[in-house]
Amino acid sequence: MNLRIPGPTPLPDNVLQIMSKQMINHRGVEFGQILNSVTENFKTLFQTKNDIFVYTTSGTGGLEAAVVNTLSPGDKVLAVVIGVFGERFAQIAEVYGADVTRLVFEFGTGADPDKVKQALDADPSIKAVLVTHNETSTGVTNDLEALAKVIKSYDKLLLVDAISSLGCIDLKVDAWKCDVVVTGSQKGWMAPPGAAMLSFSAKAWEAVEKSKMPKFYFDAKKAKSYLEKNQTPWTPGVPTFYALHVALNELVKEGLDSIFARHIKTAQKTRDGLKAMGLTLFAEPKYASNTISSVKVTDGLDGIKLLKILLDEHDTVIAGGQANLGGKIFRVGHLGYVVESEIDAVLEALKQALPKAGFKA
Amino acid sequence: MNLRIPGPTPLPDNVLQIMSKQMINHRGVEFGQILNSVTENFKTLFQTKNDIFVYTTSGTGGLEAAVVNTLSPGDKVLAVVIGVFGERFAQIAEVYGADVTRLVFEFGTGADPDKVKQALDADPSIKAVLVTHNETSTGVTNDLEALAKVIKSYDKLLLVDAISSLGCIDLKVDAWKCDVVVTGSQKGWMAPPGAAMLSFSAKAWEAVEKSKMPKFYFDAKKAKSYLEKNQTPWTPGVPTFYALHVALNELVKEGLDSIFARHIKTAQKTRDGLKAMGLTLFAEPKYASNTISSVKVTDGLDGIKLLKILLDEHDTVIAGGQANLGGKIFRVGHLGYVVESEIDAVLEALKQALPKAGFKA
Repeated sequence: MNLRIPGPTPLPDNVLQIMSKQMINHRGVEFGQILNSVTENFKTLFQTKNDIFVYTTSGTGGLEAAVVNTLSPGDKVLAVVIGVFGERFAQIAEVYGADVTRLVFEFGTGADPDKVKQALDADPSIKAVLVTHNETSTGVTNDLEALAKVIKSYDKLLLVDAISSLGCIDLKVDAWKCDVVVTGSQKGWMAPPGAAMLSFSAKAWEAVEKSKMPKFYFDAKKAKSYLEKNQTPWTPGVPTFYALHVALNELVKEGLDSIFARHIKTAQKTRDGLKAMGLTLFAEPKYASNTISSVKVTDGLDGIKLLKILLDEHDTVIAGGQANLGGKIFRVGHLGYVVESEIDAVLEALKQALPKAGFKA
Repeated sequence: MNLRIPGPTPLPDNVLQIMSKQMINHRGVEFGQILNSVTENFKTLFQTKNDIFVYTTSGTGGLEAAVVNTLSPGDKVLAVVIGVFGERFAQIAEVYGADVTRLVFEFGTGADPDKVKQALDADPSIKAVLVTHNETSTGVTNDLEALAKVIKSYDKLLLVDAISSLGCIDLKVDAWKCDVVVTGSQKGWMAPPGAAMLSFSAKAWEAVEKSKMPKFYFDAKKAKSYLEKNQTPWTPGVPTFYALHVALNELVKEGLDSIFARHIKTAQKTRDGLKAMGLTLFAEPKYASNTISSVKVTDGLDGIKLLKILLDEHDTVIAGGQANLGGKIFRVGHLGYVVESEIDAVLEALKQALPKAGFKA
């Protein structure tokens, strides 16, 4: 199967193989060494000296951990929303009692730093800003560096959803002063789903100390105190750690420059191929994501039928649109472990399937 | 390695092998079939017709899910505490604002149903009761049937921590009217850590409708609405589901009677062996757990040294005492996939290690 969704991604053989390793004591020396190696490698790949914790949860659980550890009910929060996952981040903060103001940008484009500046000027009581680095639902990558520059010039707490960008697209956690950054194991990391990783800056820890939102499983202070003895507070998903251990060693060996270049190259090849078929990309070109490409459903195309033909006749899985974008776009994932022949194959499959699904170039 | 802790447990080969299966679309037909099979098999093994959800989290996350979905801040809760995990359940409810009264029994014994009755009589405003079925920290199994009979005669909401009992020790979820029951994948289920399973009764759903504790990742209503389309709300730990799929098919084929008999037999063999060495069991005999045996550290024994010798010289891992029981007991796990030779081996290792660790029989 050619699995071309934005995670889970296909995994390399050595990562798959290590998943079959027998269970070990999660409070023993061997697991401690794995946890230590995984954590240190994540620090390299996050480009940070901040604390990093691996939670046994999904990316959404990671977003919840970011919110509940740093905020209190009633806190004023600015949520920069450019798609479904930005909206989810906002909802989590609201569920836990934050006073959330949404700054929504048209889906398909990125957030304008000037508009964020205006929003911060308009309400000085804003404590924290939620930003999605890479919005999987629209195929858009925000200019996080520019956004962070504005947000940190106001000294706000910056919580970043980097679930589908970190490990693929450049994100300098320390240089850009991102306070909490969230990612998920099944995205760029060549690992299965089952873990979310979060970094906490010194400013984030100050917020943790004042935070009054309830938490237990996601409590970062518990994660920190256990990490000091090379453990996790609760029983971790051991095989996911085996996979991360192998995968991160490879990624660190490869180096960030190569990882970013690889994603840029694969994304460009995908976009070029899609456009050559007469398709129209959904994301504004300057914001086009290097981990997922979104395509408009136009010119007679039946998006649902397309997905079905690709699956039935080409053993290929791409993603449809989410929420309001259902039926309006389709999406091709190209993050993590991708080999060029998989991109060739998905483009060839689309070429054959598109006319059958009604597309008239 | 002879891993004799109360989870993670060693896994059978076919469960380990399936973990190396390539990733699939977690919103596709194949994953839906796996999720459906796993859920139906859990219903058989929980002896319930209630809804069951598999969360990508640890057992502690499962306890949190039980609390936050059914309770509201200010709710009066009776926590029946017989060890570390009963205390944890109480703490979770407190963190989320419940008004918790603890009914604590001496560690090493089970909860007395008459005392529970008195506590319920003393405060008719109690809404919910938290009970640990099998207390891993002390090696005690509560008489849940008797406790549930009392608690349900008052029509209270009954939340049960069955993390280390379900799938090993008889627990009739429907017949005993347990409203929410929590278990963890790495215990009796012959699967790796990474998932917690919860059942919700009709009465639990009524509580869910009224519950005001904040939740997002653990939201049972979201889990229910997605399960109706054979999905989980958030990206699941796919390999953990592969493992549960294979393991539960085997357990259902084996049948509950055989599963319970197997655990009784293994536990008896372990206890007999321990006593034959002159050791004193910690748990009161009538409450002795069939998933884990606890042993007093007496007669000159250095409990820490014992664990080290077992690991270094016998490649065997047992568990020490937790919290106040640190250094006072040690524990031998015998749950899930255990072969008789592993029990022979741990007993033989103990026989050799005990005198070296100062034990004078």
